[in-house]
Formats: sequence, C-alpha cells, structure tokens
Amino acid sequence: MKAAVMYGPRDMRIEDRPRPGVAPGELLIKVHHVGICGSDMHFLKDGRLGNWVVDTPLILGHESAGEVIDVGPGVQGFAVGDKVALEPGVPCGGCWSCMTGHYNLCSNMSFMAIPHERDGVFCEFVSHPAKMCFKLPSNVSTMEGALCEPLSVGLYAVEKSGARLGQSAVIFGSGCIGLVTMLVLKAIGVSDVTVVDVVKKRLDTALALGAKRVIRGDQEDVVASLMKAGGCDVVFDAAGSPRTALQASQVVARNGVVVIVGMAADPVIGMDIGTMASREARLETIFRYRNHYPTAIKAVESGVIPLKKIASHVFPFERIVESVLFNMDNPGEVVKGVISFVD
Amino acid sequence: MKAAVMYGPRDMRIEDRPRPGVAPGELLIKVHHVGICGSDMHFLKDGRLGNWVVDTPLILGHESAGEVIDVGPGVQGFAVGDKVALEPGVPCGGCWSCMTGHYNLCSNMSFMAIPHERDGVFCEFVSHPAKMCFKLPSNVSTMEGALCEPLSVGLYAVEKSGARLGQSAVIFGSGCIGLVTMLVLKAIGVSDVTVVDVVKKRLDTALALGAKRVIRGDQEDVVASLMKAGGCDVVFDAAGSPRTALQASQVVARNGVVVIVGMAADPVIGMDIGTMASREARLETIFRYRNHYPTAIKAVESGVIPLKKIASHVFPFERIVESVLFNMDNPGEVVKGVISFVD
Amino acid sequence: MKAAVMYGPRDMRIEDRPRPGVAPGELLIKVHHVGICGSDMHFLKDGRLGNWVVDTPLILGHESAGEVIDVGPGVQGFAVGDKVALEPGVPCGGCWSCMTGHYNLCSNMSFMAIPHERDGVFCEFVSHPAKMCFKLPSNVSTMEGALCEPLSVGLYAVEKSGARLGQSAVIFGSGCIGLVTMLVLKAIGVSDVTVVDVVKKRLDTALALGAKRVIRGDQEDVVASLMKAGGCDVVFDAAGSPRTALQASQVVARNGVVVIVGMAADPVIGMDIGTMASREARLETIFRYRNHYPTAIKAVESGVIPLKKIASHVFPFERIVESVLFNMDNPGEVVKGVISFVD
Amino acid sequence: MKAAVMYGPRDMRIEDRPRPGVAPGELLIKVHHVGICGSDMHFLKDGRLGNWVVDTPLILGHESAGEVIDVGPGVQGFAVGDKVALEPGVPCGGCWSCMTGHYNLCSNMSFMAIPHERDGVFCEFVSHPAKMCFKLPSNVSTMEGALCEPLSVGLYAVEKSGARLGQSAVIFGSGCIGLVTMLVLKAIGVSDVTVVDVVKKRLDTALALGAKRVIRGDQEDVVASLMKAGGCDVVFDAAGSPRTALQASQVVARNGVVVIVGMAADPVIGMDIGTMASREARLETIFRYRNHYPTAIKAVESGVIPLKKIASHVFPFERIVESVLFNMDNPGEVVKGVISFVD
Repeated sequence: MKAAVMYGPRDMRIEDRPRPGVAPGELLIKVHHVGICGSDMHFLKDGRLGNWVVDTPLILGHESAGEVIDVGPGVQGFAVGDKVALEPGVPCGGCWSCMTGHYNLCSNMSFMAIPHERDGVFCEFVSHPAKMCFKLPSNVSTMEGALCEPLSVGLYAVEKSGARLGQSAVIFGSGCIGLVTMLVLKAIGVSDVTVVDVVKKRLDTALALGAKRVIRGDQEDVVASLMKAGGCDVVFDAAGSPRTALQASQVVARNGVVVIVGMAADPVIGMDIGTMASREARLETIFRYRNHYPTAIKAVESGVIPLKKIASHVFPFERIVESVLFNMDNPGEVVKGVISFVD
Repeated sequence: MKAAVMYGPRDMRIEDRPRPGVAPGELLIKVHHVGICGSDMHFLKDGRLGNWVVDTPLILGHESAGEVIDVGPGVQGFAVGDKVALEPGVPCGGCWSCMTGHYNLCSNMSFMAIPHERDGVFCEFVSHPAKMCFKLPSNVSTMEGALCEPLSVGLYAVEKSGARLGQSAVIFGSGCIGLVTMLVLKAIGVSDVTVVDVVKKRLDTALALGAKRVIRGDQEDVVASLMKAGGCDVVFDAAGSPRTALQASQVVARNGVVVIVGMAADPVIGMDIGTMASREARLETIFRYRNHYPTAIKAVESGVIPLKKIASHVFPFERIVESVLFNMDNPGEVVKGVISFVD
Repeated sequence: MKAAVMYGPRDMRIEDRPRPGVAPGELLIKVHHVGICGSDMHFLKDGRLGNWVVDTPLILGHESAGEVIDVGPGVQGFAVGDKVALEPGVPCGGCWSCMTGHYNLCSNMSFMAIPHERDGVFCEFVSHPAKMCFKLPSNVSTMEGALCEPLSVGLYAVEKSGARLGQSAVIFGSGCIGLVTMLVLKAIGVSDVTVVDVVKKRLDTALALGAKRVIRGDQEDVVASLMKAGGCDVVFDAAGSPRTALQASQVVARNGVVVIVGMAADPVIGMDIGTMASREARLETIFRYRNHYPTAIKAVESGVIPLKKIASHVFPFERIVESVLFNMDNPGEVVKGVISFVD
Repeated sequence: MKAAVMYGPRDMRIEDRPRPGVAPGELLIKVHHVGICGSDMHFLKDGRLGNWVVDTPLILGHESAGEVIDVGPGVQGFAVGDKVALEPGVPCGGCWSCMTGHYNLCSNMSFMAIPHERDGVFCEFVSHPAKMCFKLPSNVSTMEGALCEPLSVGLYAVEKSGARLGQSAVIFGSGCIGLVTMLVLKAIGVSDVTVVDVVKKRLDTALALGAKRVIRGDQEDVVASLMKAGGCDVVFDAAGSPRTALQASQVVARNGVVVIVGMAADPVIGMDIGTMASREARLETIFRYRNHYPTAIKAVESGVIPLKKIASHVFPFERIVESVLFNMDNPGEVVKGVISFVD
C-alpha cells in the first residue's frame, strides 16, 4: 500500500509499505479521509512537538474514517462494508486511568502518529482495535467521520466548562479547534459566543458559522471590551499563546471557568490568579478526549452540529506532501485541510 | 381595579379591589398576560391541591408579565415603562434554603395564588419585590414573559437530569410542562426525544414542536418499545400518574436518570427500584424552580426556544371565568391558555 | 485442591478439584480468608437470588484475600509472596460501561459465585486477572483484605450520597453493609449517624461501633422520631425491605438523598415520591462498586476505618458447610462470618 | 465602649466609642474573643491590602464570637445569654450572587474591617444581623467560635478540592489557614497529608497536629520529592507566594486539583499550565466562604476537628496594640493569636 512517511523536518515521502493484517479484536480499514491536524504540521515543521521527537520514520495523520474491509477474530457488531471513524488512541484497558474511564490519561497509551507509539493514517490501509472504531450512520460521511476527532476535542472542552443554556462564552482563537468549540456551544444553546483572533479571515469564518460577535485581538483592548458586559461565564483559550491565556484569566466572570484547550510552547504561563480568585473562577484543562466519538457522531447525524462546514480544503492523497506543506505555510487560509483517498 | 376572586369550587367572580401601593423595594406592575396553570384549575375545580385548601377568597394566577408603572423607594435598575416577567414566589432571603441558593425551598415562602401565602395575578395591577421581577428585552413579549414560569419548570427538570448532547430522552405527558421540557431538551442538543401520551391531539402537537417519535401509551407497550433500544438516558414523568411513574422507572437506561416533574394525587407511588438499581439509575425530583427566569428570558430572546408556540388559546380578562372553566373542562384541547389584559 | 461446591438448596459439599493454572495476565492465589456474604446464604437457602438460578454445581464465596503463589506471563507489579485482595468481578474492558469507568455495569461481566459467570473462592486456590487484584500493605491482614469487598459497597453508597462533614445520616439495617456504611460515614466526618433495626443485638453492635443513636424500628415511630429534628440529609436503606425503603423516602431532609443499598425481594416498591418532591430529595442506587478497592485498602491501612471489628465469627474451612448454614440460620447473631484457610 | 481604631500604618489606638444600638433583625453582642487575621496585620503594617486602602479610621478584627445581650425586633431563634459566632460579611440578599447561594461574591457586600464596608470587632460591643450569627452549643467556647472564621476558609478550600477518603494531599504553607485545611482533610479521612513550609517551628506544629510528613521547602526539591510518589491528588497553596503556586501546579497528580487559598502580592503568577494539561488537572480558587459556619460549629461540637489547638497565643484586649504588632513581627512564632475580652 501507499503511505506518506515523515523522515525529518519538511521531509515527507510517499512510499510502499506492506498492507497490515488483522489480529483478534481488530478491524482492517481502507482509509477514506484523514484530517490534517496542527500536530501533524508541528511535527513536519520542527521534527518535534513538546517532548515528542520524530527520531525514526513515522506515518503522520490521526483524524480518520474509512471502510471496513476485514473483521478480525472475536469482533462483534461490525461487518465488511461498514463505514467507521477511528479513534486514534489505543489505551491499555487495565491501568487506573483506564479502569476509571479516564483512558485518555492511560499510562500505556499507544496513539497514532506519536513517535514510539504507533503509526498514523496517512496511508491506504490500517488495522485498529474494534473497540476504538465507531460505525457511521448512513447520513454521516467518512469526511465527517474524520472530523469527529477535532470535534471530540471541542465536545470535551465544552463538557469541562459546564457551559449551560443562556450563559455567555468567549473563545480565543478561531482555528479548527476554536470553531468546533463554537459549534458545540451553539448546539447546546449557548448562543452568546464571542470569538477573538488576529486574522480577519478567520473571524469572518467564525461569523459565518454563527459567532454572535468577533473581536480583533490586535486592534482592540480585549479585556476591557469583554469586561464592559461583566466578563464571560465560560472562556476557552484555543489560541495557545501566553497572551491569550492571560487574557482568558482576566475576562472570566464571577463563578466562571477558563478552559485551556490549546497549548503554548512554554509550559509556564502567567495567569491572573488574583483576578480569578476575586471572582472565584476555576481553570480546567483537557488532554485529548475520552468517550466522545459516539456523541460526536450522533451530533452530526442529527444535524445539531454542521461539522462539514469546517473542512475548507480537500486534497487528494497523491498530493499529500505539498498539501500538508501548503496547509502549514498558510494557517490563515486553511481552516481545516482534509486528505482524501476516494474523491 | 378588577380582580378575579375564587370563592370556592367552580366559583370565581370578577370584583373591584383597591389598586395596590408600592413599598420600598417593590415595583407596581400593570398586568398584561397571565398563563392558566394546572394548579389554578385544580384549585378552582376541587377547592384544594394537596395540603393547600382555599378556605378564604383567593386571587388565582401566578404566571405573569406586565409593565412597570411605578418604582418603589430604593429600587435600582428598573424604570416606568419597562416590561417585566414576575417570578411568583417571594422567599425570605434569610433561612438556610435561601442562603444556600435553594430559595424555592424557603421556610417562609410567600407564593402567589397559594392559600395563606399571597394573592395571584388574575387582576389588573400587582406590586411585587423588584428582585423577583425580570426585565424583558425588546424582542420578548409579555405573553412570552408570562410563559417563562412553566418554561422555568422545564429548565429545572432538564438541569436536574444532567441531559447532555447526544443522549436519548423520553417524556411521559405532552401537556404544557412536557412540551416545554421537550423544547429545552432540543435547545441543548438532545434531539432524540420520545413523547408518550394517551391523547392523539397532544402527541400531534409534540410532533409539530419537534419530537422525534411519539408513543400512544394506551395502545402500545411503552416499556417494551423503549427497552428495545436499550432504554433512555433521561426520563421525565410529566404526566403525574402512578402508571407513568412506574414506567419511567422501567425504561431508564444504565446510568440514567428519572426526573419526576408532575405529581400524582397519592404521594406514595410504586417504583421499580429493583430495575433502577440493576442499572444504577437515579431519581430526581424538583420543587418549582430557582434562578431560572434569567435563563428562560435569554433562551427566548436568542430564539433557541420558540416559547410562544406553547400558547394555544388567548382569552380576554373579561371572559376569565368561563375561559378558565373551559380550559379545565377541555384538557386535551388546550395546550396552554393565557389570559390577556391588552389584546 | 479442596473446594466447597453448592449443588442445590442447603446442599454444599467439600470436594477435590484440580488446582487452577495461571494464564497470561493472571495471578495464582492461595486463598487465606473469605467472607460469607448475604448472597451466598441466599443462594444456599433458595437455590436462587433474583433472576440468578444455581442450576449447575457452583463454588460460592466472593469476598477474598490470599497470597500470590504464581505470577502469569506479562504481569507486572506483583511477586510471589504478596498478599492481595481479590475484586471478584472481571469486566470485559471494552464495552461502553467499561470504557466510561462504570465497569460494574459491564455487559459481559464475569463475577465470582454468580451462576454461569465464574466460580467463587470457597476453595484453596484461585487464578484471577492481576488487574482485579490489589496488594495489601504489611499492616493490612488477609482477613481485612477479604472484608474490603463489603467495605467497597459502603464506600460506594456513601460516595453516591455525597455525604459531607457535618451532615446528619440515618441507616436502615445494621447488618454488615449497614455497619460498614456507618464506618465510612464516620471516617469522613459524618458523626451524626442514627441506625435503625429491629434486632437489639445488632443495634448494640452499631452503638459499640460508633452510632450516635439507634432506633428500634419495631418499637418506635421511626418517621416521626427522625422528622422531629427535620429529617436526615443522607438516608441509607441497607435493610432491603419495602417498609424501610418507604420510611427512607419519608425521613429525608430538604435537598437530601436516599441511597438504596439493599434490595427487597419484589422489585416494585412504594416510595413516598410526593414527600421527596416537596423536599426536592433525590434517590440513588448502587450496583456493587467500581474502583473502590484501593480506597478501601488505604482506609484500613491508615486506620481511619477499623474494619476488622466487623468480623464477628471466624470459621475454619473444614467446617464451612455447617458454618455457612449456622450463619444463615442466625442472622441476628452473626454480624459477619469469615472462612479461614490459615488460622 | 472601648474600641481599637487603626489610623495608619502601625498606628492603632484604644478609644471610647458609643455602644451600638440594635436595629430590626439584629443582635447586640458583647464580644468575647477575636482572632488576629493575616489581613489585620497586612492593613496595620502597610495601610492597605490589595486594592483596599485604609484612608479613614477603621476598627480591625473580623473573627469573633461573643454573648447576645440584646435581641432586635423581628428576630427569632435567639435569646439574651446565647453564645454566638459572628460571620463577618453581610450580603445584600438580593443580587444574583446572593440569590444563587454565592453570597460571598455579593455585589453589595459589607464586610467587617474592610475600608468603606463596615467596622470590625476589635471593640467591646457590636450589632450584627441575626442571620449572620450562629448559636454555639454548650461545648463550643467563644474562643472556638471566633476560630470558626479561618476554619470556614479551610472547609471551603477542601470542599472545592473535592478531596475524598484515601486521596493524597499536600499543603504549601503551615500558617493558620494551612493548618485548618489540614485539620479538615484529616476529619474527612484524608490521612496522607504532606505539609511544606520554610520555618521549622511551623512544620513541627503541623506534625503535632497530624501531618503525615513535612518538607522544608528551602532545603529540599519539593517537586522532585512529591513526584517520586506520583504527585498529590489535591494540592493547596496556602502560602501565597509565586514560588509555591508554581510548585503546586507541578506536583498535582493526574486528574488532580490545585486550590489557591492564599494570595500573592502580584495577581499574575506563572503556573505550569503545560504540566497541568498533560495530567488534566484543574485549578480552583476560593473567595472567603459561604454557608460554612454551621458545618464549622458542628465539626467542633462533635470533636472531629480539634480547633482550639490552633490558638497558640491569647492576649487581653487592653494589650491589643502591642499584641497585634507582636503577632505581625513574629509570624514564625505565632500560629494564631486571639484577643480576649473575658479571660
């Protein structure tokens, strides 16, 4: 099969690899769509991301959906021909985190496209444990199935915020994660959503997808502007910069919450703890997601989340190398790029 | 001013009463709209409701909105001409329930149209503490303001259920409370809502307002039907009958919840505790609502809850006596009747 | 090895059985202590419990601890000679309940001493998945390790209640489960605990273990007595009778909670839903426990729960048949009987 | 009456002031004991604390208890001679924060010894709303009643942490607040408590009051030491320094929580958000306390919290000026100083 293998910074090559077999409990899947994630671009640009270093050839890509072409021994509930979304992390199932349902914090996690864990899905076929595969209803495409991965992040972020009908929200950063977070908020009745970014085009997208108002972070005093109305009940930092994290801690309303979704390069960030304490605000963090694929799929199926609007660019697999580089070099242009094996 | 005063079962008369004054902390309000609640009809029919007995003349009506025509000393944030919704209960503010935010359980509650607490709003003018009045935005009518009272019940019921995006729900009873509960569920992304009733007309209304499916409780095996799909994550009994309460306890899914919204005549009800325990389900109850008016108003203002669709009949105040009796005698006909002083 | 095998009502025989091997991921354990549970006695008395029927020979016993004598391939963190407590249920690890941490509701559960699931531990040796075995610190005996099973029930019941420092509690039933529930309450600072039972000897034990007050349910008006002080914030029904369940629903305080711990024979029980709703009380149920062994062991290790006081009778394995029958026939006499292979 | 009035930095004078009257809803109280709080010392030292500036004469002191000597009109449940603890903040009862039970965030708060709010209790008599007074049982002294104020902070901090039986905890700072936090943790079964400080004498006190282990923050690598055991489930920063806040964010375990109790001078603090996110930890803040006095009093009454051990020094009111200065100048010496009017 064909696979796009990363060898080093800006060095990704399409190669032939053996097609994987299917072990007990696994499905063999023909990949249809794979989203291009910020982490893929970070790895390809710098050869690393945080403590993870790409020091051996690695297949990137972890946001995928496709078609079942073989069903391993002992697997129930799946058949050849099923369309499925693949949750990219494979937890051990036996550690304390797994036993308590927090498998995203599994001590023995094997996550796609993470160095020394497991290869990703920028390739034609992949075998995957059936318990991490989720069947797609007939009205959910594999394109949408692939996008259930970033949607799961948005679902988890909003879940941690405890956002409720009628509350006010602000999202720093209107990239893919910021936007799916907004879609989730709107789906649960939080219509008063402000989006902050420094790129006009991104804010236009936010408005088109339903933001109530947008703020140009580079042209306006964000904190003053939001505090005029008493701050926001739920605050999401999906921009991953020290500046927005600090602002997030300053615009949170009484009894409000700040959720850190995107991470900055430096782990230590100045937060306005004094302001947060005077308003008794809390701060939540998330690490990926857990048990959110079923909800993501149902939300798309029922139409409450118009997920496909996120996909701004679709690239054929044959052009993956230049496509990922294009995506990387034009962050303001591309909301979400998706690699397709079938279109 | 004119007031409709209840003297006994089926005996309500329009009389002249002195127009109330306005004390410190109060607003004087010209009433525009008042919803007719099931409790009003119970009182008028039987002269009692549970332990409450109408043994002195009582003005009924507690779901109201109107216009501020005088502002008492010390009141801030209101002006003559404001449209407001009136939350009908006036808590003491000092007991343990009040201090902890559960003012609906206030030991010294004074609630409209409850015998020996305070008169209701089937009358032209009412004075009310400003802290229990909520300003209506320009796009929310006093008709909708009055309906914020039953909507608050629906909001509280759903809040107690903890219903989340993507879960499945069933509502027993598609009267006014059942329907507002459904509107709230849909507003927070719970689109898989089944409604059960025995009156076809009511189920048609439920479908028109967005139910995914309906079940005729008198023609179908409700429990078998719902358990085919594994039961429902959140179950609301808004029918107030021992039969539906028992069914509610039998159709709840693993880790699910049953919320009792409507009350049966006899307080002791057979619940299938064995089934609930085997699925580790919980049961929640609500008593009125607390702090839900602001959310109700925002939900109407933003359009996420199409509240006015609930109002099936509007009656002029002059015809209040026959209107309430009509409402009482045609429960299958009237989803929600509203008395108007202005239309 | 020797095993006590149940063949039918009141028919249990000590037999020779082959010693089990040890598969990958498992430990082989020499059993030291096994508690006699109410369910063991129900099975032995009636040949059934709820829907479970003993229709093939079955080894009873599921509250156990012992010594590791062999470590299966792939197991880490255990060594021969370790003392361990065995959590008796083996969940599948892959279903929705397992993935979300609610493995006690696993769709494919294999629980000790449940017909057609797996044999219990009234036998000398048992092999068990390492992930369901918990190492005992040097100051926790295998006797206490065995009792971590009922303690886990108490821990879960109290967890579900959300009981907090300074609240008032009542426990219906002062058998083993009622008493461990009381020990947990006292360990978390809930000192105002009333215990209700109809057997004086049991109430004496409750007082000796720290109950603040006891009530003879057959001699006193329990509801009137408890409501004099406003009811109880947290109410546990560990008696498993329709009468106590009803009383539980009537003595709960405003905003309080009723936790159903013990189950009655008939699943449908009359609950005072009207009273609960007027106080906005909730009802919680539990099904076994999940992830509570580590907490149980730490609580014994640190001394905050004096667990061994629960064990009123220790019987040698050789006399298991008559011992279990004695236990069964003298419920008022025996708080907790334990079978020992080592004393 | 005699009152100690602060005029400026290090300038506090005993003066004659008129004895207060008693308005409707109030009690007149003869003060018996008043704790000396860190905020009193900050005000007296610097003339300010955060944004609060002492620009007019102010009576300090807000941790008090005494004896009722007059009962205002309309007050029920109190009698002359009752011993009461005084909660120092008087909320408005009508704003959103008050209505929702978060009265500590009241928009119109009037708190003792806060400039331009209300005078404190370094004086012989005080009138106070009855709803903020809490009767002391016969076995709780007014000395303990006064200490219920800092205890309430500890109760709230632990409540926000969600600490549970069997978890591990660390407290940075073993001053009065750090120690009461430890007492609360131990009362709810959290026995594995580490205390970090830089003053040996304070750590000795922590050990004497039940800390499992202590760490000299200036002599040991705190983060390395705590992470050896996997970090702590609940982390309290009661030291109020940027250094300990950063360490708090680095020693929190997976799924753990950091509670900020003490505030540093500069509101912006560097937190290790990257580490917290990788472990999905959350951060909670508290602002004073709300509805904790009843719990505090019950915990002392029942003996689960040995509160009086906190009081290291008792000073007579006549010597209040030099006593507060002594307290201020010897932070390592005094755990908690209390002014007495009666000893």
